Amino acid sequence: MSSSQPIRVVHVGVGPMGYRVLALILERPDLELVGVVDADPSKIGRSLEEFVPQGKGSGLCIEGDMSACIERNRAVAVTHTTVSYLPECIDQLREITRAGVAMVSSAEELLYPWLRHPKWADEVDELCKKHGSRLLGTGINPGFLMDLLPLLAGLSCERVRAVRAERVVNAATRRGPLQKKVGAGLSTEEFAKRVASGRFGHVGFCESGALLASKLGWKLDTLGETIEPVIAQAPVKTGFVEVQPGEVAGVHQVVSGTMDGRETIHLDLKMYVGAPDPHDALTLDSDPPVAWRSDQGIAGDPATAAILVNSIDRLLAVSPGLKTVADLPASVKSVSFADLDFQPYY
Amino acid sequence: MSSSQPIRVVHVGVGPMGYRVLALILERPDLELVGVVDADPSKIGRSLEEFVPQGKGSGLCIEGDMSACIERNRAVAVTHTTVSYLPECIDQLREITRAGVAMVSSAEELLYPWLRHPKWADEVDELCKKHGSRLLGTGINPGFLMDLLPLLAGLSCERVRAVRAERVVNAATRRGPLQKKVGAGLSTEEFAKRVASGRFGHVGFCESGALLASKLGWKLDTLGETIEPVIAQAPVKTGFVEVQPGEVAGVHQVVSGTMDGRETIHLDLKMYVGAPDPHDALTLDSDPPVAWRSDQGIAGDPATAAILVNSIDRLLAVSPGLKTVADLPASVKSVSFADLDFQPYY
Repeated sequence: MSSSQPIRVVHVGVGPMGYRVLALILERPDLELVGVVDADPSKIGRSLEEFVPQGKGSGLCIEGDMSACIERNRAVAVTHTTVSYLPECIDQLREITRAGVAMVSSAEELLYPWLRHPKWADEVDELCKKHGSRLLGTGINPGFLMDLLPLLAGLSCERVRAVRAERVVNAATRRGPLQKKVGAGLSTEEFAKRVASGRFGHVGFCESGALLASKLGWKLDTLGETIEPVIAQAPVKTGFVEVQPGEVAGVHQVVSGTMDGRETIHLDLKMYVGAPDPHDALTLDSDPPVAWRSDQGIAGDPATAAILVNSIDRLLAVSPGLKTVADLPASVKSVSFADLDFQPYY
Repeated sequence: MSSSQPIRVVHVGVGPMGYRVLALILERPDLELVGVVDADPSKIGRSLEEFVPQGKGSGLCIEGDMSACIERNRAVAVTHTTVSYLPECIDQLREITRAGVAMVSSAEELLYPWLRHPKWADEVDELCKKHGSRLLGTGINPGFLMDLLPLLAGLSCERVRAVRAERVVNAATRRGPLQKKVGAGLSTEEFAKRVASGRFGHVGFCESGALLASKLGWKLDTLGETIEPVIAQAPVKTGFVEVQPGEVAGVHQVVSGTMDGRETIHLDLKMYVGAPDPHDALTLDSDPPVAWRSDQGIAGDPATAAILVNSIDRLLAVSPGLKTVADLPASVKSVSFADLDFQPYY
């Protein structure tokens, strides 16, 4: 994978996350954007640079036929940022898998599809092996902060008894769609309705817990998730929304996994406008103990775009199949230090 | 690698780190300790439990002939904790490599042997491929905190311009050999002599910098290391040493790597008795920025033992060759959740 030929990539999904992924692919000398696909008829045929200024001079237009685009452009990799839920993209995944490429997707449920959609997971895995494809779901969360990072931290422990990860996001500092996604400005009744719709809040959270448990070798007895509104105590005004006291400021979700009656996985996510002390934190009850903290936390959107793009060459390096973030090497890059001016002390 | 048969392991090197590794292997149901080797004639023939109480009932005695032990016991993996420097173990590595096993070693220079010993690295890599062996050098540092962790953190960044990692260890809280290793209680003259001997201080630090650079795809122009004594300002008394003001309390080492005249890698390690505010910290100059901190830091010895043992199944999963920590998947474990009591909110 350290060949000098750039990897030919088709991107699918021209939305807010897609813009970031596209801009990043265009910036990277090791990748070559060869096609862009979206299902929206109002986008098909338009020039890429209408959506992503960095696309100027690329000569690329949005196409509607994914397989044709991949085949005509001899793409070996696909980045995919369309939807969150597997039922809404399973047909796309089947189509991409048949094209014999490595696909990195932001679809949250694809992080660990064996949890909610084991039949589809097995079907897609078989398709991958038949067609020499690789499929990966990843991002900052799920995909990194609350699953891969605790797993890696656990490698330095003789024993891990429990994992606790916490993320507090001040949604007021993030883009408008995220503020909407967490329910800022809703009444508690409307919040409850959205929850009941099954299409609300942070998606793929239980998938983080399941992936973590599976890769730690923990056969959980129970895995569950709660979702509650965070109610504003004072007025909060952002560039996108005004929230009054008593209205919903955002969302608080908790994933809990147990073994033998003991909670071994506890993932706690708060995303709301006006959240004080935003941070990421990771604590392992382990020998030796592990406790890491990141004040402010990491900005989710650029981090997810980065992880998608930084997974392409690493996914191409593993055998075909439906993969998880735990299956990939940390890097497949390598440089020679033949001309290095090396000044060791010993 | 998720077979139910435990992996047959021979351990080489019955010293302080070896004790921890041995105890951990004996505790793990997925591993089976089948042999123990040391070159020291005063240890050969003695019962394992003389050194490691957990070895009671294992029936194992220390052996002197490594190849014979591996072959007779049909070992597929070797853990190796003997020395730090490659010139002192290259013959052992050749011998182990010819045995067709996966070897995980704490030899610090083996983290990235292409830096100081490129010919040996190529030789051993070829031997591995010929005999179906895998070789890995790892530990908490080098091997995790200041190389693998920054590399992984960088995966969540669109651009990484520079990496800064810092570790402050209060050596008074660690075992006697570490306090000696850092020079606690020496005069500054004696410290300078030890430095000049080329066998002093934290080993493999430049290897961390080189691995990090290589796997970030950074062709460094310069890479250098400095080592200085930390002088005690007040008396410090530990269970092992008394340090007077003006004497050496420990060591301060810095690795610096540059590209185009700009410092892109800065690794800063202080290990001394009485160090206030011990911690591990990681900062990336990146988009988005990354800043993680672990108050107290992680205890090095158990973490290194854990990483060695937790690398065995992951090393067996990759192709033969001389490998780095960046080449391994995060986990090869997998459990089925067929009987899971799953309570999703959506």
